[in-house]
Amino acid sequence: VPSTDELVSSILRGSRLALAQSLTLVENDEPNGYAILNQLFPYTGRAHLIGVTGAPGTGKSSIVNQLALQYSQRMEGSPARRVAIIAVDPSSPFTGGAFLGDRIRMRDLAGNPNVFIRSMASRGSLGGLAAGTSGLVQVFDAAGYDVIMIETVGAGQAEVDIARLAHTTLVIESPGLGDDIQAIKAGILEIADLLVINKADYPGVENTERALRANLELATNGQVATTNGQVVEGSGTTAWLPTILRTIATEGAGITELMQEIERHQQHLLQSGEWQRRERERLHIELENLLRETLVARWRATLPAASYQEVLSDLVSRRISHHQAVELLLERKEG
Amino acid sequence: VPSTDELVSSILRGSRLALAQSLTLVENDEPNGYAILNQLFPYTGRAHLIGVTGAPGTGKSSIVNQLALQYSQRMEGSPARRVAIIAVDPSSPFTGGAFLGDRIRMRDLAGNPNVFIRSMASRGSLGGLAAGTSGLVQVFDAAGYDVIMIETVGAGQAEVDIARLAHTTLVIESPGLGDDIQAIKAGILEIADLLVINKADYPGVENTERALRANLELATNGQVATTNGQVVEGSGTTAWLPTILRTIATEGAGITELMQEIERHQQHLLQSGEWQRRERERLHIELENLLRETLVARWRATLPAASYQEVLSDLVSRRISHHQAVELLLERKEG
Repeated sequence: VPSTDELVSSILRGSRLALAQSLTLVENDEPNGYAILNQLFPYTGRAHLIGVTGAPGTGKSSIVNQLALQYSQRMEGSPARRVAIIAVDPSSPFTGGAFLGDRIRMRDLAGNPNVFIRSMASRGSLGGLAAGTSGLVQVFDAAGYDVIMIETVGAGQAEVDIARLAHTTLVIESPGLGDDIQAIKAGILEIADLLVINKADYPGVENTERALRANLELATNGQVATTNGQVVEGSGTTAWLPTILRTIATEGAGITELMQEIERHQQHLLQSGEWQRRERERLHIELENLLRETLVARWRATLPAASYQEVLSDLVSRRISHHQAVELLLERKEG
Repeated sequence: VPSTDELVSSILRGSRLALAQSLTLVENDEPNGYAILNQLFPYTGRAHLIGVTGAPGTGKSSIVNQLALQYSQRMEGSPARRVAIIAVDPSSPFTGGAFLGDRIRMRDLAGNPNVFIRSMASRGSLGGLAAGTSGLVQVFDAAGYDVIMIETVGAGQAEVDIARLAHTTLVIESPGLGDDIQAIKAGILEIADLLVINKADYPGVENTERALRANLELATNGQVATTNGQVVEGSGTTAWLPTILRTIATEGAGITELMQEIERHQQHLLQSGEWQRRERERLHIELENLLRETLVARWRATLPAASYQEVLSDLVSRRISHHQAVELLLERKEG
C-alpha cells in the first residue's frame, strides 16, 4: 500500500492508478483521504467545473460523453483537454448502484487517456453526497484535469445543491415530457447558465423551446437572450442571460456550438469577477457541509449507545416528544 | 394571537384555523411550534401515512387529488375519511414556490371540509425538509386526519428520504419516458409498496409494464405478484410483494382499485407487525434529523462571526484546506 505522500506525488505526476486509489480513499471518508485532500488542496482552483443536470430521459449522459470526447481530442488550434466525469446517482441509496448509462459510456470513452470517469453512488445524507462530490472534484482539479463534469440524475434538491458547486451549469431538457414538469423548471431554471434541448429531432421541440423561453422570461424579468446576445450591459455591470441551444447528442449535432457557449460563459465569469465570487461561494458551502458532518459524527462518538436506545424507546412509546428526546440527548452528552 | 394551549385545544376540537396557524408555526421552526408539537405528540400514531412519489410528468398530483376526493366521500358502508395532503416541492429552493399543480388541485378540492391541503416549499437542507415534513405529519395526525398523503416531485434522494417516513409508498410511473429512467427505477422500486402506471391510455403502456416487471423481478429475486397474490407465505413469515396497477387519473379510472390495494397493504402491515416496525423506524429517523439540525444550530450560535469569516478567507486563499478549516472552527468553539 503506497503512503499518502507517495499517492500525492504520483497524482501530481499524472498517475491514473494513484488517482483512482485516492478517489476511493476520499469517497470512503478514510483518514488517508483527508490527508490526501489536505496535501492536494493548494494545487486546486484551476479546473472548469461544469454541472450537468435535468430530468431523467433527457439524454444527459450522451451529452456528457460527447463533450468529453470532443474536449479530449480538440482540434482547431486549441490543445486536447483532460476531462473528468463524476456521475452522481442520488436516486439509488439502496442498491448503491451505478448508472445504467455507464456501460454505454464505457464503450465510447474507455481507453481514452485524456478522460477519467468516476461514478459516485449515493450516501446516507445529502450533506454527505455534496461533500463527497467536492472531495472528488478537488482530487481531479489538483491532478490537472482541465474540465470536470459533474452529472446528476433527476431534478431535485440534491441536483441543485451539487449544481451550486459548479462554475457553469447546463440544464438538459427534451421534447415531449409532461405538463407538470413545468413546475420543476421554475426552480431548476434559476440555476441554469445554459439550457440545452436535447433530442431536438423529436416532435414537440418547438413547444418545448416556447415553454422554456416563457419560463426563462419569468425568471429573468423579461430578459431572454434570443441568439448570441446573452451578455447584456445594464447599470454598469454585465449579466449573463441563459441561452437556449438544441442538440441531438446521439448524432453529435450541436455539440461544437455547446462547447463554444460553455467557453463564452467561462470568459464571462472570468471577466465579470463572477468566477471568483462563485469560487468563494463554493468553498463556503463545502466548508458548511464538512462542518456539519464532522460536528454530528463527533457528538455521536461521545454518546453512550445505551442512553440513546433508552431515549428512542421513550419516543416510540410516546412518553416524550421528538424535541424532548433531543433535549435529553444533548443534556446527557454534556453531563 | 392565541396561546399555544389555546391552539392545541382548538386543533383537538377540529378547528381548521388553529390547524393552519399551527402548521405555519411548526414549518417555520418557531419556538411555539416546538411547544405545540410537544403537546400534540401523545395524540399521534393513528393516521395512515401514504407517500406518493415518481418522476415528473407522471400525474402524481392527479392521483393524489382523486384519492383525496374518494376518501373524503366514501360510500359503500365505510365512513368518509379526513384527508391531509402535504405537497413537498424540493426542486425549488430559489423561488420557494408552490406547485403549479396546486391551482388545479384547489379547483377540485377547495371547500371540501374533509380535505386539508398544505404545500411545503423547500428548505435549505434536506434534513430540514424531511424534519419539516415530519412536524406537519404530527400535527395532522393529532388533529384526527385518517389519511395523510405526502406527495413529492422528482425521484431523488429527498423523495426517498421522505418516502421512508410513510407506511405505504406509491411509486407513480407513466408510459413513454426515456430509457435511462430505468436506472432511476432500480432505486425507487425498492421503496415501492404499490406501483401505479398512470396515463394507462397512452401508447407504450405495455412496454412500461414489462420494463417495470423486469426491474421488480430483479429487486425481489424473481418474485413478483402478477395479480392479487402479493402476500406470500415463506419461511414462516408473510412478505409483501409490490403489485402493479394501471390508472387514468384524469378520468378517475383505476382509483377505486388503487384504494383497495392501499387498504390491503395497510392490513398486511398491521397483521405482520410491520406497521410497528415502520413506526419505530420512522420515529428513529425523525429523531436523527432533529438532533442533527439542533446540534448544528447550537454550535453555530456559540461561534463568533469574525472567527468564522477569518477561517473562510484562509480557505478561499488556499492557505488551509477544508479539513484544516473545520479543525480550526471546532477548536475555537471549545476554547
